[in-house]
Amino acid sequence: METMRVYSKTELSFEIISRKWMCFIVHTLANGPKRFAEISAAIPNISNRVLTERIKELEDLEIINRNVIPHRPVRIEYSLTEKGKALSDVLNEVGKWAGKWM
Amino acid sequence: METMRVYSKTELSFEIISRKWMCFIVHTLANGPKRFAEISAAIPNISNRVLTERIKELEDLEIINRNVIPHRPVRIEYSLTEKGKALSDVLNEVGKWAGKWM
Repeated sequence: METMRVYSKTELSFEIISRKWMCFIVHTLANGPKRFAEISAAIPNISNRVLTERIKELEDLEIINRNVIPHRPVRIEYSLTEKGKALSDVLNEVGKWAGKWM
Repeated sequence: METMRVYSKTELSFEIISRKWMCFIVHTLANGPKRFAEISAAIPNISNRVLTERIKELEDLEIINRNVIPHRPVRIEYSLTEKGKALSDVLNEVGKWAGKWM
């Protein structure tokens, strides 16, 4: 039986960034709003099912916004919230670490 | 069939930090060398099998060192390398993000 221990905020954030593809999706949205197909194209190995799940989780976490653009047909784009942009900045630090040490 | 695309260093680093428990282990070693049992105790929900795997991966990535202390009995401790300490500093930024936004 898993021991129940309340995660600290730091551990909760590790839990989020260690969900497969989360970092990739935030990183992909760093340079502007994108449609589902554009995100999927930027992360070739992610399935549409998993991308749909991750997008929902990121919306629930208020890391991304879902923008409905009332064109004909309707366009749906995803963009980083302020919280998401702040996470993206931190992920850039991970990228700098990688650039130096990998 | 998964599309083969060469990951950038940044994406490779995302791949590492999104392996379950990797961040937790690096974070646990941030305040000094620890034995297997101490790491396991600090991360209650991780199994010994997975912890053994992750430790091997972190060693292969040169993020942690395995230190054999020639006591009787022999003591084995794990500690962060310079590369590991640099990653730990970045993970602290994730923690700060969490402190502000979670």
